[in-house]
Amino acid sequence: MYNHKMYEKGIKSSAIRELFEYGKLKKQELGEDKVFDFSIGNPNVKPPKCVNDSLIKLLENDEHIHEYTSAPGDLNVRISVAEYLNKMHQTTFSHNFIYMTTGAAAALTISFNALLNDSDEAIVFAPFFPEYKVFVESANGKLIVVNPNCKTFVPDYTDFENKITEKTKVVIINSPNNPTGVVYSEDDIKEIVRILTIKAKKYNHPIYIVTDEPYRELAYDDTVVPFIPNYYDNTIVCYSFSKSLSLPGERIGYIAIGPKASYAKEIFAAVCGAGRSLGYVCAPALFQKMVIDCLGQTSDINIYKKNRDLLYNALVEYGYEVVKPKGAFYMFVKALESDAQMFSDYAKKYQLLLVPSDSFGYNGYVRISYCVSTKQIVDSLPFFKKLIEDYKKRG
Amino acid sequence: MYNHKMYEKGIKSSAIRELFEYGKLKKQELGEDKVFDFSIGNPNVKPPKCVNDSLIKLLENDEHIHEYTSAPGDLNVRISVAEYLNKMHQTTFSHNFIYMTTGAAAALTISFNALLNDSDEAIVFAPFFPEYKVFVESANGKLIVVNPNCKTFVPDYTDFENKITEKTKVVIINSPNNPTGVVYSEDDIKEIVRILTIKAKKYNHPIYIVTDEPYRELAYDDTVVPFIPNYYDNTIVCYSFSKSLSLPGERIGYIAIGPKASYAKEIFAAVCGAGRSLGYVCAPALFQKMVIDCLGQTSDINIYKKNRDLLYNALVEYGYEVVKPKGAFYMFVKALESDAQMFSDYAKKYQLLLVPSDSFGYNGYVRISYCVSTKQIVDSLPFFKKLIEDYKKRG
Repeated sequence: MYNHKMYEKGIKSSAIRELFEYGKLKKQELGEDKVFDFSIGNPNVKPPKCVNDSLIKLLENDEHIHEYTSAPGDLNVRISVAEYLNKMHQTTFSHNFIYMTTGAAAALTISFNALLNDSDEAIVFAPFFPEYKVFVESANGKLIVVNPNCKTFVPDYTDFENKITEKTKVVIINSPNNPTGVVYSEDDIKEIVRILTIKAKKYNHPIYIVTDEPYRELAYDDTVVPFIPNYYDNTIVCYSFSKSLSLPGERIGYIAIGPKASYAKEIFAAVCGAGRSLGYVCAPALFQKMVIDCLGQTSDINIYKKNRDLLYNALVEYGYEVVKPKGAFYMFVKALESDAQMFSDYAKKYQLLLVPSDSFGYNGYVRISYCVSTKQIVDSLPFFKKLIEDYKKRG
Repeated sequence: MYNHKMYEKGIKSSAIRELFEYGKLKKQELGEDKVFDFSIGNPNVKPPKCVNDSLIKLLENDEHIHEYTSAPGDLNVRISVAEYLNKMHQTTFSHNFIYMTTGAAAALTISFNALLNDSDEAIVFAPFFPEYKVFVESANGKLIVVNPNCKTFVPDYTDFENKITEKTKVVIINSPNNPTGVVYSEDDIKEIVRILTIKAKKYNHPIYIVTDEPYRELAYDDTVVPFIPNYYDNTIVCYSFSKSLSLPGERIGYIAIGPKASYAKEIFAAVCGAGRSLGYVCAPALFQKMVIDCLGQTSDINIYKKNRDLLYNALVEYGYEVVKPKGAFYMFVKALESDAQMFSDYAKKYQLLLVPSDSFGYNGYVRISYCVSTKQIVDSLPFFKKLIEDYKKRG
C-alpha cells in the first residue's frame, strides 16, 4: 500500500527531533524559561546584518529574483563561491564544479547518490550525525562505522585501516564535529589521507572524501580548521550556510568538487543527475543570490564561545567528564550512568534536554547543543549541579 | 567511480532545459528581442504584490524567521493550507496530512518514494511532463504511458483500462495539462475514477491518484477545474506556488493527503520518511510563512489569456493545427513535418524555440510556452507565418 522503508523512517524520527518536539510541548506547559532545551542545532545567535539587508535589496530591486536559475545554480553565484574558496584557501576551484544546493542535507544526499553504486560502502567516524546513515542508505550504500580514540575523539586509525575494503567508495569527514565539537588537526587529516592513499592504490580506484562542513567557520581559541581539498585531491566539499549565517530553515548550501579530483567532470554530471532525480530543480533562488553578498560573513561567534566557556568550566567544576569542544556548538559529556538513554531520561527531571549519544553511533555520552541564549546556559547550571549531586547520592 | 544512472541523467538534460540554455546563448549573440524563446515555463508575469510585501514584512518583523521549522512544515502554515483547501473545495483536509515541500518536483518525488515499492507501476497520460519518468524511476517505480485521444488530448480510456495491472499503484493526473493546456472535464475525471474503482476492487488494493497541480488556478474562459479529492478518496495532491505566484525559483509547495484516503496516516509517515531520506529537512522557512499571506492570490492571469488568444488566433489563421488550451500556459501545435525534432530544428532558422513533443511521450507536435511577454508573442508572429510559408513552398 505504501513503502515500508520510508514509513519506518517517518515514524522513527531522529532522537534529536523527538527531544526537540518534547521540549516544545514542555515549554507550552511550564513556560519558555523553565525548560532547558539543548537538543537541536538551531542557532540562537541572529544572522549577520548582511543577510536581511541583501534579501530586502534583492526583493526591492531585482525584478527577476524569483525566476528559475539554471539547475546547478545561478552562474554569478557559482563564480562568487569558487572565487571566495580560492581566495580563502589558495585553491583552484572552478565554478563549473560548484553546484548550489538546498542545504547540506541535500548536498550530502546528492553526493552519495552521485558517487555510490549499489552496496558500495561509505565510512564514517563515530560519533557521527545520525542522518548520514539515512542519506547513505537512500543512495543504496552501506554505512561502515569506525571507532574513535576514546580520549581524543579523533578516529582510531587502526580501526579505520581495517575497515577499508574494496567496496569503500566514500569517507565522510565532519570537522568541526557534530556531536563532539572536536576539530581534526593537520596531523589527523594527514594520517587519514596517508591511509586512504595506500588503500586507493591497493584497490586501484579512487576513494572520495566527502566533507560535511556546516561548522567550518565555527572554531575557537585560534584553532585552525584544515581545508581538506588542500591535502587530498579526491575531495567533495558539502557546505551549508545554515550555521555560519544562522538560517537553518532556509536551506542553502553547495557542493564543490575538488578541481583535481579524478573524474571531476563525470562526478559533476552525476551530481546534476542526482539533483534532478531527487526532485531538486534548483536551490532557492533568493537565497542563492544572497550568498554573493554574505560570503565570508558569520553570525557573532563570540556568543557561542562565551556559552562554551561558561558551560564547560561549570560542568568540569561540578565533576562532569567533558570533551572540550574546539569548534561547532556541541559539547559531548559523559553520561553519569552507563546507559545514556536512561541518563537523558533522568535529566528531564530538571528539564535538561540532552541527546543520548547512542543515536550518534557511540554509547555512554550525551550531546549538549549550546547554540542557545547565554541566559539559558546560566539558568541551567544549578540544575546540572543538582543532577550530578543526585547521582553522587545514588553512589 | 561514480553512479552511471545519475551520470546519464546529468548529461542528458531535458530537451526543455537544453533549448532554454541554447536560447540564453543565442540572446547573448543576437540580442534579447531577436530570439523567441518559448521553451520553458518560467512565468513572465510578475508575482502579485502580496509576495514581496509578505517577505519584507516577515524579514523586518519576525526574529525567528530563518529558523528550522518542523520537518512537515510550520504548524500555522499547514493549518492555513488545510483551511484554505476546505473553504475553496468544501473538503475536510486536516493539517495533520499537509506536508510542506520544496516545490512540486519535491512533492512528486517524495510522494512516489512514499507510495511505490520496487517495480510498482505508475500510470501517466501522454503527452506528459518528462520529469515524471525521472521522479518515478528514482523511486524504483516503472512509468506506464497511456495514449491520448488524438483529437481532444484527454486519455484514451480503453488504453487506460488495458494498462492497469496488479502492479499499478499510482495514476498521475496533471490538469490543467503541461504540455497541451487541456483541462479535464468533470466527465473525464468521473470516467477515470469509474475505471480505477473497478480495477482497485479487482486487484484488492488501493490505487492512488497523484495530482500534479501547479496550474490549478490557471484556467481561462470560465473553465472549471474539478478538484479530484472530491471525486476520489485515494487522492494525493501535489501543489506548487511556482506558477500561480510566479516564483518557480523559490521552490515552495505542498503535499495534501486526501482526508478519507486509505492508510492516510501510514502514507503521511512514509511521506515524512521519504522527505528525510531525500535530504529535505524542511521547506524553505521564509517562503513557507509567506504562504499564509498569499493563499488564494495569483499573478495577473489575464496576461496569459491575452497571450493565448493572440497566438492561438494567429497560428490558426496562418494554417497551423493547434489544440486550444483552456488552462496552464502551454500550447500544443502540430509540427509541419512528421519528425517534431526536425521541425523544432528548422524553426530555429527564425529563432523560434519550440520544444519537440517527443520528450513529452508523444510524437509530431511542439510545445509553446506562452508565459512570455506579450511583445514577444507579437514580434514572433511574422516568423511563425514565414515558417509555415516555407513548409508550404516545400510542399
